[in-house]
Amino acid sequence: MGEHYRQLVEHLNEIYHINRATSLLRWDQQVSMPPGGAHARAGVIATLSRLEHERFTSPQTADLLAAAQAELNGAAYDSDEASMLRVVGQDYDRATRLPAELVADYAEATASAHKIWTHARQTNDFAAFEPALERIVDLALRRADQWGYTDHPYDALMQQYERGMTTARVRELFDGHKPQLVALIAAIKDSGVTVSDAILRQRFPIDQQNTVALKIVEAFGYDFKRGRQDVAVHPFAMRFSRGDARITTRFTEDYLPPALFGTFHEGGHAMYEQGISETIDGTMIGCGASLGMHESQSRLWENLVGRSRGFWGWALPQLQAAFPDQLGSVDLETFYRAINAVQPSYIRVEADEATYNLHIMLRFELESDLVAGKLKVADLPREWNARFEAYFGMTPPTDTVGVLQDVHWSSGLIGYFPTYALGNLLSVQFYNEAIKAHPTIPAEIAAGKFDTLLNWLCVHIYQHGRKFTAQELTERITGGAIRSEDYIQYLQTKFGDLYNL
Amino acid sequence: MGEHYRQLVEHLNEIYHINRATSLLRWDQQVSMPPGGAHARAGVIATLSRLEHERFTSPQTADLLAAAQAELNGAAYDSDEASMLRVVGQDYDRATRLPAELVADYAEATASAHKIWTHARQTNDFAAFEPALERIVDLALRRADQWGYTDHPYDALMQQYERGMTTARVRELFDGHKPQLVALIAAIKDSGVTVSDAILRQRFPIDQQNTVALKIVEAFGYDFKRGRQDVAVHPFAMRFSRGDARITTRFTEDYLPPALFGTFHEGGHAMYEQGISETIDGTMIGCGASLGMHESQSRLWENLVGRSRGFWGWALPQLQAAFPDQLGSVDLETFYRAINAVQPSYIRVEADEATYNLHIMLRFELESDLVAGKLKVADLPREWNARFEAYFGMTPPTDTVGVLQDVHWSSGLIGYFPTYALGNLLSVQFYNEAIKAHPTIPAEIAAGKFDTLLNWLCVHIYQHGRKFTAQELTERITGGAIRSEDYIQYLQTKFGDLYNL
Repeated sequence: MGEHYRQLVEHLNEIYHINRATSLLRWDQQVSMPPGGAHARAGVIATLSRLEHERFTSPQTADLLAAAQAELNGAAYDSDEASMLRVVGQDYDRATRLPAELVADYAEATASAHKIWTHARQTNDFAAFEPALERIVDLALRRADQWGYTDHPYDALMQQYERGMTTARVRELFDGHKPQLVALIAAIKDSGVTVSDAILRQRFPIDQQNTVALKIVEAFGYDFKRGRQDVAVHPFAMRFSRGDARITTRFTEDYLPPALFGTFHEGGHAMYEQGISETIDGTMIGCGASLGMHESQSRLWENLVGRSRGFWGWALPQLQAAFPDQLGSVDLETFYRAINAVQPSYIRVEADEATYNLHIMLRFELESDLVAGKLKVADLPREWNARFEAYFGMTPPTDTVGVLQDVHWSSGLIGYFPTYALGNLLSVQFYNEAIKAHPTIPAEIAAGKFDTLLNWLCVHIYQHGRKFTAQELTERITGGAIRSEDYIQYLQTKFGDLYNL
Repeated sequence: MGEHYRQLVEHLNEIYHINRATSLLRWDQQVSMPPGGAHARAGVIATLSRLEHERFTSPQTADLLAAAQAELNGAAYDSDEASMLRVVGQDYDRATRLPAELVADYAEATASAHKIWTHARQTNDFAAFEPALERIVDLALRRADQWGYTDHPYDALMQQYERGMTTARVRELFDGHKPQLVALIAAIKDSGVTVSDAILRQRFPIDQQNTVALKIVEAFGYDFKRGRQDVAVHPFAMRFSRGDARITTRFTEDYLPPALFGTFHEGGHAMYEQGISETIDGTMIGCGASLGMHESQSRLWENLVGRSRGFWGWALPQLQAAFPDQLGSVDLETFYRAINAVQPSYIRVEADEATYNLHIMLRFELESDLVAGKLKVADLPREWNARFEAYFGMTPPTDTVGVLQDVHWSSGLIGYFPTYALGNLLSVQFYNEAIKAHPTIPAEIAAGKFDTLLNWLCVHIYQHGRKFTAQELTERITGGAIRSEDYIQYLQTKFGDLYNL
């Protein structure tokens, strides 16, 4: 490591430390802060975000990056040093393309739109939200123009969340399994098989829900000496370092799944961060590679492990010990069917594995058409409902449970939705590769042993942090690109079995 | 408010926001952080502390202060604007007098000494701590030289914690009640009266301890919509704004007082911060005036209210409802005597009201002699024990429970101890004034009503934040200076009654 590289790391450290402090301010805001602290907190977060942005976009960063680059002497592409310069260089390039006035406009517009949306959703009043959303779409386009793109402005927006992914590729992946998904859901509907989840809709005291969920994620390998769990209204995971990666959970006393599978899900995110190599911990590349990569890991632990029949052969007795009255007499097959019941819902966050990606496709199609100028904001509700009917065979009765349901657009998060579906696709690709390398994994999981799987994920994914993009990681691991075939096959097999298709 | 003043406020806001983020990082470190987060956390705190110091000591601060000063146009001494310029100007003057190299040396020496002290205390090995403490005393002297003083280097050190206080004045105040304290303790010892606290040494489940302590501080007026309580090994209060002032508590299952009176104590600190005027909230003068002023409020609620007979006439039935088996049959007088038992201890933090200030006097005498060069570090243990014998009539059996017991010196906190005793003196002076203004206060407290007292404290103390020094506040409130007569009279009356003196 040369002197210029050392100077760069020192400079970036300062910026990264401000960023970590902001993360703690946000964590506390959602987990601990009393209501009276909101006003002062917003000011502190705004100041630290501005300081971070100012320091990072200063010419000093460019100078140090260039000097360190000159010093690299052909270090390997996958070395920590070359990766740092490559990834941070891209970050710098993107961050410096936005003029300060556009950054400020965007911050103001999203803060204002979020308030308007909250009220519009409550009152089922899309018209009230329309002007705010039009402004957000306009600003998104201006941001895309600044960042630059060749094919589609949506390409530029997606880079914030999934570097290297393109609109064309997403469309191809989505179109590649949409007909099969629509057909699968229709077949399930027509199967005549009814799967009841009544067993999950009893009174489950929160303390026991918590104890058993934590016991299971600890068995997965989530390290509580380097993590903790708290309650939050909108659950999330937050990393401060590989030594401090936290999860949050929401409890519903009369419905078991949200806390149970939510804890598996956030535990997956947090184990990813706990697995990052010590050599890049505390640097700007010492975190998960992309939102899609992150989601692949939360979904892998939540669904491929956590909703599998084998896993519950080991876990159900523990759940029964925690809830003898509610679950004491349930058999494995009834329980397994209950947690995998397919039930098309208007609401994305309540969607099961079979329907989830359809919710995402709908949003992707609409938002990419919005920024392409092919769809007007005013036409969104009509278009939403028409597509929903086409994909799910039902029409949302209100915009509150339709086009107004998600927080994303009001927060300016256009280009974010695809990452959820990409995560689902990748979760199956990676899980299949892990089993190919270690065919004993399913049997181990059925015995409550998860270390072979976790170790494989650490070695192939977690340790690398942001050194590689999702595309690069997928190529390294599977020898090919991200694809939808594995995912749709997984769903067809799993739900074909469940619904006698 | 002129344009330059506005610019100054904006500049200071940024610095203050960094400071608030650091406070949250420290709060989280003691309350929430998993052990694995320690290393990364230290780095983030160091960076933010450095950024704050750099920005505050920049010439820009001096320029903005001078420009805003020129714009004041004779604003009243007690106006927010004049107070801000006066107090922040003093802060700036002190902060800029320390060369960066001395700041770094001091940070390094205290971090290192703290580790050495921890081990030395465990192993009762003062000699191992001696060189580290010698270095700290030397650095304290160098800091005092930089800050400047006329009479005594200890004057310069005390200004960090109690602006405007002098060594001579502390000595006068302490000498003014030391003989009476020594005599009081001797008289209690010779009284033949035994007060048992056995009733407090039973098993008190922590959940009930917590519920009843929180109920009482809420009755005092601590606002949980603008605060919260957590568990910490070394309890403290922490303010982020008047809308977010938090407390922490330590629970001992087989001894009731630590959590109960500790919650009253920290609640007093937090109510002070919740009472600061909105007009100065979020500025550098929007916090308690000094450590002594802060301690006067924690002590007032802990002791003058919380250990009074009248208060327990109202509170004991609630405590009995929480602990029917343990306390159901205790009468008010027995309970009141138990919580006020005088029992000389080697350990300051376990000291009762009658002996507390003697512990402080001992420390003040030793540390002021250390920095004056009248006492060598090597002679500290001998001198500690000799004075302890003279004041308490007993000699510490080990240095662990003697000269090594406190964390302060190893952390570089020389000049801090007197603020505890000053807080005790002020607590009685202020309480007496409140009662003079509202003679119904004792009767109200006996009925569980605390708003007249809290409101008086808000109006006369809390709202002003750091606009005035402790001396100025005392003068405004009592028409005179801080004095020891009220405190010693309070003790003599209270313990004369308890011990038939």
